[in-house]
Amino acid sequence: MAARRVKGNGGRPRSPIKVLVIDVGGTNVKVLGTSRSTPRKIPSGPTMTASDMVSAVKRATVGWAYDVVSIGYPGPVWDGRPIAEPKNLGGGWVKCDFQKAFGKPVKVINDAAMQALGSYHGGRMLFLGLGTGLGSALVIDGVLAPMELAHLPYSKGRTYEDYVGLRGLKRCGKKKWRRQVIEVTQALCRALQAEYVVLGGGNAKRLKQLPDGVRLGDNGNAFLGGFRMWEDTPLRVRSKTRTRSQDEQTAAGPERLGETTFQRP
Amino acid sequence: MAARRVKGNGGRPRSPIKVLVIDVGGTNVKVLGTSRSTPRKIPSGPTMTASDMVSAVKRATVGWAYDVVSIGYPGPVWDGRPIAEPKNLGGGWVKCDFQKAFGKPVKVINDAAMQALGSYHGGRMLFLGLGTGLGSALVIDGVLAPMELAHLPYSKGRTYEDYVGLRGLKRCGKKKWRRQVIEVTQALCRALQAEYVVLGGGNAKRLKQLPDGVRLGDNGNAFLGGFRMWEDTPLRVRSKTRTRSQDEQTAAGPERLGETTFQRP
Repeated sequence: MAARRVKGNGGRPRSPIKVLVIDVGGTNVKVLGTSRSTPRKIPSGPTMTASDMVSAVKRATVGWAYDVVSIGYPGPVWDGRPIAEPKNLGGGWVKCDFQKAFGKPVKVINDAAMQALGSYHGGRMLFLGLGTGLGSALVIDGVLAPMELAHLPYSKGRTYEDYVGLRGLKRCGKKKWRRQVIEVTQALCRALQAEYVVLGGGNAKRLKQLPDGVRLGDNGNAFLGGFRMWEDTPLRVRSKTRTRSQDEQTAAGPERLGETTFQRP
Repeated sequence: MAARRVKGNGGRPRSPIKVLVIDVGGTNVKVLGTSRSTPRKIPSGPTMTASDMVSAVKRATVGWAYDVVSIGYPGPVWDGRPIAEPKNLGGGWVKCDFQKAFGKPVKVINDAAMQALGSYHGGRMLFLGLGTGLGSALVIDGVLAPMELAHLPYSKGRTYEDYVGLRGLKRCGKKKWRRQVIEVTQALCRALQAEYVVLGGGNAKRLKQLPDGVRLGDNGNAFLGGFRMWEDTPLRVRSKTRTRSQDEQTAAGPERLGETTFQRP
């Protein structure tokens, strides 16, 4: 999948079109609309097919007005389509024509990538989603790059996901798992030269102390990411305080953005 | 280091300002100017300090007209400055004020990143530099992201660089090293979800058959990257042939760019 440019500053009230965001998970499917304040939870599970999801979402959102749909999908996505069935749900996801099923324009994106979009605060961010598996995405100067770091080898014949995913948590216990998460986070942050890391996903809440440059994501960020997927206005990232040294950096080479805010043009 | 946007389509004759590009290596420093057709080689080596390099480059380029300077540096760069001394050269690189030394605006960038900039053909490219070490950079939709993948663990307590850098070549022999390069390239391409990989660096020429989606870089690309560092016009990437299916992809989600060409606005 190619990169996508992060659009807009993610404020839902500013979105010109009404978006229905669907965050598909192995335990629940969560939905939120542009004009709604509270997400609705629909129980999912290993038997839920793609068309079950569509029907359940339609039932749960009767009377909701929306023009377009964003789907965060728990698996790899390429060209806006799932390319493998989800591990913790029923089948039919790869072949499903979501656009037809909802009768609206639909964008499908990997769930970690959607949360990354919503977690972005400028500069160069690595997002790691600590759930059953390990989701990952990089956002660089507003450009989203979904990644699949989970299955790279890490240590003793095991992958990153084996260490920091649910299997790692179960195998090693919470204390050791926490240490492993920090180690993996720092190694990947260094390797991908990120300025900061956001840890999201269901297990991020089990962490305690976090090193500098690492912060916890917010569950609501997945929805924010879903809204951002439909915004038109490119992000403008600018430093809160522009110092002489920063001006020199700009002249001298690659910029490093420190404290940043987003500005609508 | 933060990401940089790749600018222009890299054609030297179109560059409005005259650039002197300096590609610093452990055996040679190579220089090329906007109005020159052949790079000049200056022998370097473990005793060459930063100020030795500046003096040698000035001597080698007497009579060359240039407004600005690009330096490709064989080590990590942050905020446009080397942050560690090079392994195969003398000292003084971190503290050197290149701008003052040349009396012109200077941009310093990691050497692999400079070659990546010059190797970019649109979409989502992973660049791996096979030299003494392993350089790496990702370019996503025109945004350059220098990386430091070399020291991530890969197998049996060894890093990627241990396998595909010069140490790996010496330890394993050419035949096994070639296989390892392909394996590492494919693993990293998958993990970073790149559309294609360009292999550059001094040892890339030792490779034989390459899998689909992997191509060899050209030595001249480092200079092209150095020229591109000073171009103003943002890249426009467009598909050579725009099919119905591609239009649907754009509507349906993240775009995947296939065959691409660059267009000046």
